[in-house]
Amino acid sequence: MISARWVSRRLLSTSLYTVRTHTCDELNISHESKKVSVMGWLSHKRMDRFFVLRDAYGSVQAKIANNAKLQSLLKETPYESVLRVDGIVVGRGENRNKDMKTGEIEIEVEELTVLNRAAANMPMLPDAKASEKTRLKYRYIDLRSEKLQRALRLRSEFVHNIRKFLVEKSGFVDVETPTLFRRTPGGAAEFVVPAPPPNRGLAYSLPQSPQQFKQLLMVGGIDRYFQIARCYRDEGSKGDRQPEFTQVDVEMSFTTQEGVMQLIEHMILSAWPESLAHIKPKSPFPRIPYSEAMRLYGVDKPDMRVPWQIEDVQGNIFDFLKKEDDKSENWQARVLVCRGAAGNGLSNSTRNEWKRLIQMNENGQNFAICQPLKKNWFKSIDNQKIIDKFDLKKDDVLVVCWGESEGVYWTLGQLRNYVAEAAGLRSKNTVTAHWVVDFPLFSFEEGQLVSTHHPFTAPLQKDAHLLYEKDPKKLLQITGQHYDLVINGVEMGGGSIRIENSETQRHVLEVLGEPMEEMQHLLNALSHGAPPHGGFALGLDRFVALLSSEGDPLTPVRDVIAFPKTKNGKDLMSDAPTTLSEKQLERYGITLQPTSNPTPS
Amino acid sequence: MISARWVSRRLLSTSLYTVRTHTCDELNISHESKKVSVMGWLSHKRMDRFFVLRDAYGSVQAKIANNAKLQSLLKETPYESVLRVDGIVVGRGENRNKDMKTGEIEIEVEELTVLNRAAANMPMLPDAKASEKTRLKYRYIDLRSEKLQRALRLRSEFVHNIRKFLVEKSGFVDVETPTLFRRTPGGAAEFVVPAPPPNRGLAYSLPQSPQQFKQLLMVGGIDRYFQIARCYRDEGSKGDRQPEFTQVDVEMSFTTQEGVMQLIEHMILSAWPESLAHIKPKSPFPRIPYSEAMRLYGVDKPDMRVPWQIEDVQGNIFDFLKKEDDKSENWQARVLVCRGAAGNGLSNSTRNEWKRLIQMNENGQNFAICQPLKKNWFKSIDNQKIIDKFDLKKDDVLVVCWGESEGVYWTLGQLRNYVAEAAGLRSKNTVTAHWVVDFPLFSFEEGQLVSTHHPFTAPLQKDAHLLYEKDPKKLLQITGQHYDLVINGVEMGGGSIRIENSETQRHVLEVLGEPMEEMQHLLNALSHGAPPHGGFALGLDRFVALLSSEGDPLTPVRDVIAFPKTKNGKDLMSDAPTTLSEKQLERYGITLQPTSNPTPS
Repeated sequence: MISARWVSRRLLSTSLYTVRTHTCDELNISHESKKVSVMGWLSHKRMDRFFVLRDAYGSVQAKIANNAKLQSLLKETPYESVLRVDGIVVGRGENRNKDMKTGEIEIEVEELTVLNRAAANMPMLPDAKASEKTRLKYRYIDLRSEKLQRALRLRSEFVHNIRKFLVEKSGFVDVETPTLFRRTPGGAAEFVVPAPPPNRGLAYSLPQSPQQFKQLLMVGGIDRYFQIARCYRDEGSKGDRQPEFTQVDVEMSFTTQEGVMQLIEHMILSAWPESLAHIKPKSPFPRIPYSEAMRLYGVDKPDMRVPWQIEDVQGNIFDFLKKEDDKSENWQARVLVCRGAAGNGLSNSTRNEWKRLIQMNENGQNFAICQPLKKNWFKSIDNQKIIDKFDLKKDDVLVVCWGESEGVYWTLGQLRNYVAEAAGLRSKNTVTAHWVVDFPLFSFEEGQLVSTHHPFTAPLQKDAHLLYEKDPKKLLQITGQHYDLVINGVEMGGGSIRIENSETQRHVLEVLGEPMEEMQHLLNALSHGAPPHGGFALGLDRFVALLSSEGDPLTPVRDVIAFPKTKNGKDLMSDAPTTLSEKQLERYGITLQPTSNPTPS
Repeated sequence: MISARWVSRRLLSTSLYTVRTHTCDELNISHESKKVSVMGWLSHKRMDRFFVLRDAYGSVQAKIANNAKLQSLLKETPYESVLRVDGIVVGRGENRNKDMKTGEIEIEVEELTVLNRAAANMPMLPDAKASEKTRLKYRYIDLRSEKLQRALRLRSEFVHNIRKFLVEKSGFVDVETPTLFRRTPGGAAEFVVPAPPPNRGLAYSLPQSPQQFKQLLMVGGIDRYFQIARCYRDEGSKGDRQPEFTQVDVEMSFTTQEGVMQLIEHMILSAWPESLAHIKPKSPFPRIPYSEAMRLYGVDKPDMRVPWQIEDVQGNIFDFLKKEDDKSENWQARVLVCRGAAGNGLSNSTRNEWKRLIQMNENGQNFAICQPLKKNWFKSIDNQKIIDKFDLKKDDVLVVCWGESEGVYWTLGQLRNYVAEAAGLRSKNTVTAHWVVDFPLFSFEEGQLVSTHHPFTAPLQKDAHLLYEKDPKKLLQITGQHYDLVINGVEMGGGSIRIENSETQRHVLEVLGEPMEEMQHLLNALSHGAPPHGGFALGLDRFVALLSSEGDPLTPVRDVIAFPKTKNGKDLMSDAPTTLSEKQLERYGITLQPTSNPTPS
């Protein structure tokens, strides 16, 4: 039994409840002459006498004095074997290793125990180069790398800080909601779980978010709810997504859009890891209306690390670009002045590649990239007039885009990112956060009216009457109480004030053509005493990826997930998914089509 | 924008980020003459002038002065409608309500806003009587009850305290592990999730616990892992179980059995809610060897709230009970002296019912319940001899059981609980915790050798050599490094030191006849540098049910789960599980048998 005295002495030690006395990183000259027991992985050996022991926290060198037996044991022990070293800490004096945290000392080995011998032919070593495939198959070795150790510990710290803010400072209640649920309207992108008897023939769905549950909790009087929620989305191999992911899910009653945004902002800043204070954004995060984001940046998630905005041409200087037979009322020319962007990045081949990418999209419009040092961009106009008008310096670049209005903004939005990236003018190691607000409640997608956010989002009070208009154009004028958090050009999360009125909700579902019977439980709930409420969901994997890379929003989320799947949904380590047994098929009453084609991972 | 000053003033308020000024429970005489805005549910009204507003935190009375319009609004507003009340706090003086926390004051209404009108015919009211079925169908109303509000908030508090202990005091890392995994050997009791293209024809399984992942994390150098983990078990309608449940999952490297037990004990005591200090158990929890538990209590999870132990008879006083033709070497008689148990609970009908229950089990043996006040229990022996031998007082009860040894202990173990319950002699509102240790590594179940805990449990070092014995009897002599936490007669969790050696693990799987290919990834991991490790899993739902009931281990877990399912796996609120759409069946390439029989919930 650990005595009380001993507990209090070592309370903050990560060696408490273990048989080691210290972790590999914590020994220093103050421990000189002390007898210690440390345990870890054999990561380096030299002259059969020196070796480095590594654990999750760091490394320490050990030395075998004249002891042939131990030396031969060391010699024949493979790297990555797990060792126990009992010995005395000695100072290394002049021989100290300044590059190593524990470099002042080493352990003079008295006893060396091989706790578990590793295979002589390891498929890979931690922190050494290996293919992505090998690293996923032997994830348990890759997890020993400094990069993954750091990422998982950073994630744990961040999540814990979020909980402390929500529970201790803001009175939120952590409520777990089910993941075996019913399908939601359409049922798209939801994994299914066949039910056993007595419900055989039916199936649960794994929800994409606890959206319905958190609203039901508000109806249930749980006022301030949060959950670090596991969610599921079957999107096949779409982008950098995992079939299961985690979101920080928050909902609050009797609040406003501004109330939720402030809460989330305070939560993020309060939870920001101390080690990353140098990239912590300032509060308040700017609020940008959707229409302004589209007008100035051509996207609803602008990357504010890029210093340029789309500009109005002011005047008819570029009207010569309009073909004579083009009668469109929507024709526009807009420019992007990329100060300081003239450089190696803007080669002809790069520009052709951009052209190709832009043209692949139906929104793509014509554009020209003009550099003062290169002459004669346009033959029909004196280029100096353009240089003067936009006050272009030698190292500036002017991007002109013309054509159908919406496409012009889209094209310049894309080029804003391309040029900044190529010119290396996107700020590095910074985090710029802002809110995009005042989204339209509905949008048109493939000729159909859809919710911009989701069908539970409330309109602005002043626009509520427009919900009952028959003209779709009027519906598109409704502004929703919907807000997105955008960081470094990526949507990190979104939220809204929800519709609390059952009749309004029913009407919106009708407008959207959603099947009413699937949502009856929610409509019922709203008519049995539902408070006004709103909330938010933060994509945790993506956010931690941003943190762990000090601001790179393109870091793959698998770098911050302990056991990720490949793009094709495979777990290379355990070879999931697998075939099912007869017994399982029988229990759930299912028949599965034989695998169509064996898939590369 | 909330100013910094305002933030700091209200930092601990649950009204921060909302539009109310106070919650319904916090107003008192110190707020007299203040203007306040409170929001909540209309829970009581009287004389069209007084009403009580309730929120998650409490209630407050409001009064409408002479205002016919507001009075008529109140009159026609149904109960459970959500209201906003703006008004002035006034003292009630002599009229104060001592039974109400806010009874000193009331709010003189200036403005009354119906934020959301409830249906006039509510299917149920919170805290009012309703059938279990109705309460599950309208869970969002039931959640407003004091009981469920308290349970969910207690759960949140307990879980947060656990995290604080593990992260802040003990250096553990919170790691999320996947729930879309491969089937484990046998694949019994695991829900399946059909995979989409390109893996159509295969399926994931929803794991029963993160057992394999937590071991793999140890191999990966994450030293001290925990997770509040969602787990899944398809056991149909077996007992008080939910298809998805939550466990506090912990694993540690370089530790010992005693190390893990101490950690868990400290974790539980550190996380114990303050409001339940009066039932907090003392540390250290006693350690009881499995053999002693079986000998003294007849079960491996004895309820220590019952004061009696099974006793050896010492002498041949009961040998007359052995039939002459019974040659069994295993024959035994044992007694349980139930001091103070003679009372109304021991009627003939109760005793007959016990007999019936005992005989239903194959372990059931003959028993007699003897009360000194009733004469002639046994005709062939002078009963006074028995009374003297066991020093029986008038209000004592002696239970004698005889027959096959193992069955005798089992039978007395059952009767120990029955008698204590009937006699009301089980301590109420107490929590007695202890560890059961030294379990056999293997047991026989239906003629087959099985793991007592699971196949990853390590034997005691001194017994390791017995693993290679061919004789099953020798295998049964091996003691495992496995420990169960038992509270009030219920197994709250269990853990073990795991096998870290790949060859040993392979051998144990072979002995158990488990298919090796299903476990190849774990065997690989153990041979690539696996540290010695061990851990524990605490059943969170069951534990919170115990806490919320102040010690009743039989409280249904659905009382501490926001949205539970019925025994038949139905969600009565949303009517899950449901049929699947053609599109879903097509996507996963599955065919489901039509529902065999519509099931009652």
